[in-house]
Amino acid sequence: MIIVTYRIETGGSIEAMAAKIASDQSTGTFVAVPGETEALKNRVAARVLAIHELAPANRPSWPEPDAEAGPVRRADVDIGFPLDAIGTDLSALMTIAIGGVYSIRGMSGIRVIDMKLPAEFGKAHPGPQFGISGSRRLTGVEGRPIIGTIVKPALGLLPEETAALVGDLLQADVDFIKDDEKLMSPAYSPLEHRVKAIMPRILDHEQKTGKKVMYAFGISHTDPDQMMRNHDMVLAAGGNCAVINIQSIGMGGMAFLRKRSGLVLHAHRNGWDVLTRHPGIGMDFRVYQQFWRLLGVDQFQINGIGVKYWEPDDSFVRSFEALQAPLFSPDDRPLPVAGSGQWGGQAPETYRRTGQTTDLLYLCGGGIVSHPAGPGAGVRAVRQAWEAAVAGIALDEYAREHPELQQSLDKFANAKDA
Amino acid sequence: MIIVTYRIETGGSIEAMAAKIASDQSTGTFVAVPGETEALKNRVAARVLAIHELAPANRPSWPEPDAEAGPVRRADVDIGFPLDAIGTDLSALMTIAIGGVYSIRGMSGIRVIDMKLPAEFGKAHPGPQFGISGSRRLTGVEGRPIIGTIVKPALGLLPEETAALVGDLLQADVDFIKDDEKLMSPAYSPLEHRVKAIMPRILDHEQKTGKKVMYAFGISHTDPDQMMRNHDMVLAAGGNCAVINIQSIGMGGMAFLRKRSGLVLHAHRNGWDVLTRHPGIGMDFRVYQQFWRLLGVDQFQINGIGVKYWEPDDSFVRSFEALQAPLFSPDDRPLPVAGSGQWGGQAPETYRRTGQTTDLLYLCGGGIVSHPAGPGAGVRAVRQAWEAAVAGIALDEYAREHPELQQSLDKFANAKDA
Repeated sequence: MIIVTYRIETGGSIEAMAAKIASDQSTGTFVAVPGETEALKNRVAARVLAIHELAPANRPSWPEPDAEAGPVRRADVDIGFPLDAIGTDLSALMTIAIGGVYSIRGMSGIRVIDMKLPAEFGKAHPGPQFGISGSRRLTGVEGRPIIGTIVKPALGLLPEETAALVGDLLQADVDFIKDDEKLMSPAYSPLEHRVKAIMPRILDHEQKTGKKVMYAFGISHTDPDQMMRNHDMVLAAGGNCAVINIQSIGMGGMAFLRKRSGLVLHAHRNGWDVLTRHPGIGMDFRVYQQFWRLLGVDQFQINGIGVKYWEPDDSFVRSFEALQAPLFSPDDRPLPVAGSGQWGGQAPETYRRTGQTTDLLYLCGGGIVSHPAGPGAGVRAVRQAWEAAVAGIALDEYAREHPELQQSLDKFANAKDA
Repeated sequence: MIIVTYRIETGGSIEAMAAKIASDQSTGTFVAVPGETEALKNRVAARVLAIHELAPANRPSWPEPDAEAGPVRRADVDIGFPLDAIGTDLSALMTIAIGGVYSIRGMSGIRVIDMKLPAEFGKAHPGPQFGISGSRRLTGVEGRPIIGTIVKPALGLLPEETAALVGDLLQADVDFIKDDEKLMSPAYSPLEHRVKAIMPRILDHEQKTGKKVMYAFGISHTDPDQMMRNHDMVLAAGGNCAVINIQSIGMGGMAFLRKRSGLVLHAHRNGWDVLTRHPGIGMDFRVYQQFWRLLGVDQFQINGIGVKYWEPDDSFVRSFEALQAPLFSPDDRPLPVAGSGQWGGQAPETYRRTGQTTDLLYLCGGGIVSHPAGPGAGVRAVRQAWEAAVAGIALDEYAREHPELQQSLDKFANAKDA
């Protein structure tokens, strides 16, 4: 059985609304029709398993006429769907257990807050090809976070300009570099030219140092055939990673790519926020991420502590915990990627709040490249911050003997927009 | 240039927020970085073209701490993106112009309300293969709406049970029949068995009457390869239409299918509501539908008048108008599909409010099959209602000489849940 938990609001009866969700999403119809028998209903009908009433809300999440009148009742409702009614196809699951519920009248809000899938889903889907262990093996980084950075500005560099910046970042001894998710294959920087300009520098650096920096190229394309050509181009040039805009290509694009992929798939959620930002509407990340992990995301961007975006720290921490929990096996855990406004300063809080793990990719943009002593000092400062975090030493104390960290603290610790 | 109109809310400065959207979605970064030059900014930077201030809102759409304090300023902001920054790939467009904006801090709401694409998009994408004219040609219906129905219950019929119901509907002289969007290929009704049970009846009916009823099979699958096998199975069996759950398969799945499709693609939005139901958040259908029309949707479900779901009539009418307007050519117009709780009763209002067109698929479930005198009378009643609507005759007047319509009025006109 598939169990989905919905947090619902209604001005009416919680019990009636729960029953309506179960009915609408399985056998339900608006009038009795010939052929509808009890037997088939029993075969596939969804059922209300539990209702946990919550404190009422002062105002409805959706400002609809029905709901504006009075206080709004709230409850968490568990609904069970027979596996036979849905099967293991994720688009069927999304359509039946999630898609349809947002259209139901008489609710002033519904948020899908949990989903428990039976083991058949683990068998039916590939999951990550590389995940945490593969990301570590390919970067050669053990015992500390993988330190990454992003080529900025997001848009507007010619391939040779990008490659020159990448050259600086390689010298800085970073572990991972990525295209901004907004950079895919525009006319001024076709992916092919970017690959040709960048990969020789990555390979040359590997020859000289023995360290292969993981570079994530933006290969996303609406057309899965074109996305595969992009993938193949990166792989043929010796690359090992790609940025995938999962929300734009959709589950179909992701499934197609994963079946044929030889690259680490680094997922950017690009637009996910609209599904989760209102606390009474949409979906928790712990539900959303199950789809994309089953589909095969290897590295999952989930913001971080003190980001420049709207997302509060608590929300990031819950996302991190969701990624840490095996769905069906420890191997289905992607590498969590903390990014946005990150520099070494968030290392202690990130470490403390994520179960003291160093299994993450810690992605710093300006926090590395805008270090006063250059990107090399920026990378060292971030590593030092993580050393301090793991050792339980305050950053300002550790900084006394680590000048790069001290420079970071001086520049970023009090910056409003860091 | 691509012009996108955002309806934004903020407790702060509208002008600053507009500038931030433009910057964040193109070149922007949170600190100055080496290599960022004015030249490249000019090449690809998005620009604020216009700001139309609106009346302030009493409460923020997203209940965030920043916004709870005071009244919320609102404005419609036009932002122009150089085509060179994005190109014509729809996943790049979605990522850059739409996806990223929902994450910006300091706004308490943002809704994408319009999007004007340059002609290059029309050339880069296939658009509908069949659309309005193809749907008419294949059904042989001219001069009135195509009348369709849905096999109910949604889930739980065995293939032979479904086929028996289809047999009744064929006798009823309906033009179009579809699987419920929740029915794809579950274990108790694999698509293959359903096709084998249903298509001989469709073809037999065609042999006997000369009329080929269009049957839309639910072929959606997360894996585009499997979806194509489903497509091929329907086509090989003589079918000509498929229900596509666009929101579940995503743009990648849709692009893959359209390139190879020989079927009319009937789109169900399944989950779209969460993107549009809150008026201060998300996206208007007039924006959303542009993506899916360019990708090739032939028939587009958009609810109807007096539906059983949350969507108000005005919203349906705006969706209908959006589909009626050519993007780049009259051929890129899909057939609008009015459905949900429909029977003949909504025909006059639907006709009046959609520019007096009969270019639509009018989809009635219980409104046909639960007619007191059976589905055949149900179909006749719906046709009679449309005859009355087009002739400008009140339904109750027209019903005096049309008993099936009279029976419909008696049963459905005062039913609470019709």
